[in-house]
Amino acid sequence: MTAVDFAAFVDDLATLSGKAILPFFRTTMAAADKSRGGVFDPVTEADRAGEAAMRQMIKRTFPSHGIVGEEYGDERTDAEFVWVLDPIDGTKAFISGLPTWGTLIGLTRNGEPCYGMMHQPFTRERFAGDGGEAKWRGPTGERVLRSRTGVSLADATISCTTPRMFEGAELESFERVEKEARLARFGCDCYAYCMLAAGLIDVVIETSLKPYDIVALAPIIQGAGGVVTTWSGESPAKGGAVVAAGDPRLHEQVLRLLNA
Amino acid sequence: MTAVDFAAFVDDLATLSGKAILPFFRTTMAAADKSRGGVFDPVTEADRAGEAAMRQMIKRTFPSHGIVGEEYGDERTDAEFVWVLDPIDGTKAFISGLPTWGTLIGLTRNGEPCYGMMHQPFTRERFAGDGGEAKWRGPTGERVLRSRTGVSLADATISCTTPRMFEGAELESFERVEKEARLARFGCDCYAYCMLAAGLIDVVIETSLKPYDIVALAPIIQGAGGVVTTWSGESPAKGGAVVAAGDPRLHEQVLRLLNA
Repeated sequence: MTAVDFAAFVDDLATLSGKAILPFFRTTMAAADKSRGGVFDPVTEADRAGEAAMRQMIKRTFPSHGIVGEEYGDERTDAEFVWVLDPIDGTKAFISGLPTWGTLIGLTRNGEPCYGMMHQPFTRERFAGDGGEAKWRGPTGERVLRSRTGVSLADATISCTTPRMFEGAELESFERVEKEARLARFGCDCYAYCMLAAGLIDVVIETSLKPYDIVALAPIIQGAGGVVTTWSGESPAKGGAVVAAGDPRLHEQVLRLLNA
Repeated sequence: MTAVDFAAFVDDLATLSGKAILPFFRTTMAAADKSRGGVFDPVTEADRAGEAAMRQMIKRTFPSHGIVGEEYGDERTDAEFVWVLDPIDGTKAFISGLPTWGTLIGLTRNGEPCYGMMHQPFTRERFAGDGGEAKWRGPTGERVLRSRTGVSLADATISCTTPRMFEGAELESFERVEKEARLARFGCDCYAYCMLAAGLIDVVIETSLKPYDIVALAPIIQGAGGVVTTWSGESPAKGGAVVAAGDPRLHEQVLRLLNA
């Protein structure tokens, strides 16, 4: 069974988790929720509901598979196939009502990411990839994702969730790249990596990522023709400081600048 | 004729400009556009197409009204009613494929904002207000917008498009507030003000705004119960350094901190 065979199953996971999560988005806008009072934490509730739904479906369908999740911990991480789940990547965007969060559903085979989806249930978009190809599906149809190539750093758009995530030497590294780039966009969470796969953002630089922040995104980025590694050029599967670029040569150049 | 009577007309302007602008969003994702080569600038094309469509409709319907627009300049700015248009607020979000840009349609009466709409055609959301009330309309229905009150700065979410917009004394002012706040979100453009109206963001602090960046948003913020002024507490109608808060007392507190 190859990774591609999991695509339909991941679609079902996305549909299921989206139904669990979306009712909690922007709950303060809904009068019905005001009665719940101050103890109601919509993002925690949504995170748990989304992950519980996915875990249950995975266990029922693939009982031998492992699961790594943000909310409910790790199971059978030495299995051949391990699911790596982040029901809400971008919780700060979520609580601020911004549509740049997403549900990350990743699959590793023998420790390496082999399939991933980012699902944005509010905008009804799905970005999926298997490292060989990547696709977008949304209300207006379906498209193949191709990252942008042939762009120099001086013409590049770079991104990270917030420049406040960097400190000390890492901040200096990030600012070395930012200074050379045409445009820096902040506040995008997983959406930034998907826009990189779509050819609209050229470089994403982040740090302190957990495996579940990046495992689902790597096969999308790679499937679109991009490159994603740690700042030391290793597999991003374990998280940490991560750099992605749409153009492999731009990735090399940014790696050098980060480590200069 | 009161400002409220313009609501249906503004809806038509939003529909028209959305149809003109949306085809240019994420054009690099569409294979058909790749043949156009490097001279094709989708955001400029979209900006012009959106504003031209709105101007034509305004002139045909209200020939005595004035118009201020980002792309095509000013006409009859001494008229009782002046339309203030920004077809794409958040052009950097637009070119990066992020859904946080919006079309701003504002109306001033004798120089003061009296009606405004933020239209996000990709997410199909409309935020509108007349200073007395504000509403959201989207794919899932319609809701009254109410800003969040009773939140201290220590529990507040603040936002600006990018901290890089501030320099010198303004940067120090912004950082004084940021240091006291619970959470700072960047990269949201006009969307941040609408999330403030929706009770999901508490404070937005920006600088160097043009009138067309804020005129449409002021009646939405005020209609939801929030306050928006310049950093010196004046009407925001002329742009400049602007601060908005969902809670009037929080607005006073932030004003004091900015001017400390």
